[in-house]
Amino acid sequence: MNHIQSRNPRTGSAQFEPLEESSALDVDRVVKLAHAAGAAWSRVSAAGRAEALEAIADHLERHASELADIADAETALGATRLVGEVGRTMFQLRLFASELRTGVMLAVESDHPVEGPPPAGRPRLDRKWVSLGTVAVFGASNFPFAFGELGGDTASALAAGCAVVVKEHPGHPVLAARVITLAREALEESGHNPDILNGVRGLEAGKSLVVHDLIAAVGFTGSQGAGRFLYDLACSRTSPIPFYGELGSMNPVFISQAALDTRAIALATEAAGSISLGLGQFCTKPALIFVPAHDAFLDTLSTALAAVEPGPLLSEHSQQRFLDSVEAVKSVSGVTEHVALRRDDTLRMVGPGLLTVSASDFLDRSESLLEECFGPIALIVLCESEEAFEAAIEVLPGCLVATIQANPESDQSLVADLIDRLERKAGRIVLNQWPTGLAVSHAQHHGGPYPASTSPLHTSVGSHAMMRFVRPVVLQNLTPGEWPLVVSGTTEP
Amino acid sequence: MNHIQSRNPRTGSAQFEPLEESSALDVDRVVKLAHAAGAAWSRVSAAGRAEALEAIADHLERHASELADIADAETALGATRLVGEVGRTMFQLRLFASELRTGVMLAVESDHPVEGPPPAGRPRLDRKWVSLGTVAVFGASNFPFAFGELGGDTASALAAGCAVVVKEHPGHPVLAARVITLAREALEESGHNPDILNGVRGLEAGKSLVVHDLIAAVGFTGSQGAGRFLYDLACSRTSPIPFYGELGSMNPVFISQAALDTRAIALATEAAGSISLGLGQFCTKPALIFVPAHDAFLDTLSTALAAVEPGPLLSEHSQQRFLDSVEAVKSVSGVTEHVALRRDDTLRMVGPGLLTVSASDFLDRSESLLEECFGPIALIVLCESEEAFEAAIEVLPGCLVATIQANPESDQSLVADLIDRLERKAGRIVLNQWPTGLAVSHAQHHGGPYPASTSPLHTSVGSHAMMRFVRPVVLQNLTPGEWPLVVSGTTEP
Repeated sequence: MNHIQSRNPRTGSAQFEPLEESSALDVDRVVKLAHAAGAAWSRVSAAGRAEALEAIADHLERHASELADIADAETALGATRLVGEVGRTMFQLRLFASELRTGVMLAVESDHPVEGPPPAGRPRLDRKWVSLGTVAVFGASNFPFAFGELGGDTASALAAGCAVVVKEHPGHPVLAARVITLAREALEESGHNPDILNGVRGLEAGKSLVVHDLIAAVGFTGSQGAGRFLYDLACSRTSPIPFYGELGSMNPVFISQAALDTRAIALATEAAGSISLGLGQFCTKPALIFVPAHDAFLDTLSTALAAVEPGPLLSEHSQQRFLDSVEAVKSVSGVTEHVALRRDDTLRMVGPGLLTVSASDFLDRSESLLEECFGPIALIVLCESEEAFEAAIEVLPGCLVATIQANPESDQSLVADLIDRLERKAGRIVLNQWPTGLAVSHAQHHGGPYPASTSPLHTSVGSHAMMRFVRPVVLQNLTPGEWPLVVSGTTEP
Repeated sequence: MNHIQSRNPRTGSAQFEPLEESSALDVDRVVKLAHAAGAAWSRVSAAGRAEALEAIADHLERHASELADIADAETALGATRLVGEVGRTMFQLRLFASELRTGVMLAVESDHPVEGPPPAGRPRLDRKWVSLGTVAVFGASNFPFAFGELGGDTASALAAGCAVVVKEHPGHPVLAARVITLAREALEESGHNPDILNGVRGLEAGKSLVVHDLIAAVGFTGSQGAGRFLYDLACSRTSPIPFYGELGSMNPVFISQAALDTRAIALATEAAGSISLGLGQFCTKPALIFVPAHDAFLDTLSTALAAVEPGPLLSEHSQQRFLDSVEAVKSVSGVTEHVALRRDDTLRMVGPGLLTVSASDFLDRSESLLEECFGPIALIVLCESEEAFEAAIEVLPGCLVATIQANPESDQSLVADLIDRLERKAGRIVLNQWPTGLAVSHAQHHGGPYPASTSPLHTSVGSHAMMRFVRPVVLQNLTPGEWPLVVSGTTEP
């Protein structure tokens, strides 16, 4: 039996007890338990599901500082940020609860019957939503709470009435187990079978999960390599299933000449903050900045990045992958290392770096330059003017978010044009703010064309995330007076 | 260069001029033209798109009888039915136009800004819809209009602001070309570049289409073999794309003892009509009927089916596939041929047949019995009582529709239980009507778990079909007063 060993990212040394990986038999057992318990859960009323989600949020709240401590030991993200992230995770659970209570998103839509021959004549149709079944969730390590075992994918699937089996992240194995235990306690205390949420551990267990007959959908946040591998597994099943994968993104920024002219220093300072937030380990990190050449901007950005404290990345593996990808980009002809990464390999610390390239070199070698470097670095594409933006956008892959910095007085047509073009590439377009700091709200969309998402119609953040785990069913000719029991098919817990 | 030859399904003889298949170069050229023209089309306002769809419908209406004649020559579905189907196709185009005019489905959703730190604090977010890009459509031959080149997939993709390249069906090549020509005329007359709709011909052209870089999604209606092949192609692309495939369905019917006791004769007569409508070549044909053993029901059904005029199936290929699949099911141990298929191979005619099997044999050999026989036949599963329904539902694959025949006076709890179980298997549940005769309406859902659909969240019929071809984009921090040009990003044609 293999084990997963928690490690201190600051030292690399083992910490906590090793945890057993799940065997194929374990996975089968857990999925069957989840499926069995899920049958009752899917019949719980929306209000009942809302209460359960709130109970989980309340229970997390009571354990916030304990959880943040474990998370910091396993991810080095810092207790303050992590307590904040527990807050975001509770907020998310409560947002789904409140959506369930308003009932708008899962409302039944009805077509009244129309007498006469088709196509105008028609029977009564009631379009309702049913949960998909048991969902497999693969969380991320960079947000161990908000995108982790109890993050948006799990919360939205539970909200949708699905049971969830989580593939626990090996980067924070002790936290993963603890979070799932707490959520199960809260479910049990609120009267539900805790088997609607469980975890499995290990790479092989993750594969077994995706191909299990009783798994009806997958939520995934992580790297393009792992995500694409699991997506391919999901699609190659005898019965393929929806795979909602968020696989990474370059998140380009476009800065107008007018914005530079009026606020180059502020923009550079803000850019440095967005690039280095969480040591750049954000899926929304701006990795590519297109900007007319401007010395004060570049100098201020460089100085600000050089002033950021080095720190440890999420794990040794994360650090190695980051350094390798930076090396690959640096080696592309035309790329200049403007701020060298500061490294202290004894202390496993990395400080932000900055690369630059000309717009024409970028266009010539964009394929080699569009590799995501998951850490504190960005590539500045120095443009002769804003006219270079159009050709650059053409070569961009699908992105989670694109950002525009511009002035309303002079940039109306530029912004209209950029939005029009960027809408074809990104799921979110930010104007005069920065892409990091993703709001959790009703209208939010966190997705985009591949590889940003494997399912570009759907979001992994915000209320609509819940709609990934339900499908419509139309009931035809169920006259309400005649069949009173049927249309209100849910039961209180 | 290969050619596609139209053939008379009644005689097998060649008719009309042969048509050239499209080469890979042709496909590339057509897709690039569609993509280029699609850029302007995606910017046309919803009202402008509605007008264009109505112009297509009007133009079809003017040519309805000409089109029905060509269609009858190529499909033998009969001019009356085919004129009706042109009407359904026009109705469908006008339904999308009316949805576009109300604007409800594609409305912008906004979150107003909230002051303060996250997660409660947030910027302004406007969630809008953008078209996916250029869509490939593979229509069916059994509804050469309503599910054909200008059927629901094409209409909904155009409504969504997408350009469309159709893989023309080899079963009605002349009709396909004519329909596309008419639609292009209507587009041109209403001021749009007709290249937003075009067709390609041939099996290889279809494959080239699915893997073309500029194709953003696929709509498919057809057999499980072809659909799965193309689905696998779409998923294996470097950048996978959404594949909306409707691959066939068994459409089970459950008849309660009380319904039998009160109206066995009527049910049998109606069942015969639903099984043999269009010679059983409907994706909603009830292929499996679970019913407590009842002599009068079975006798009446048999007599009614035996009285149905034999006729030609859609093509020689369709007929051979139908006969082969019936042979395969007939050869399963326990299956009885209750009404033998009537065949006149000289005249290429087939009359309806009926097979029976006991519930226990069905459960023992369900895998061999769940093959779709696309033509006029059904398998009656004779049950000792309604108690056999539960185990039968467990083994059913995903279905487009399931039907219940029951009496409100005595069957409330049975119906509630059946709906609860069937919701997990089907996209539509019909009570006391029959599954054929699918209404085209706002709330309709024509989909279901695999293999009914490769994309169980989405419908290929009804207004929501349009939502398969748009994705959300969130605009963050676009204060309306400051950026007036941007939020209303569409232009009149």
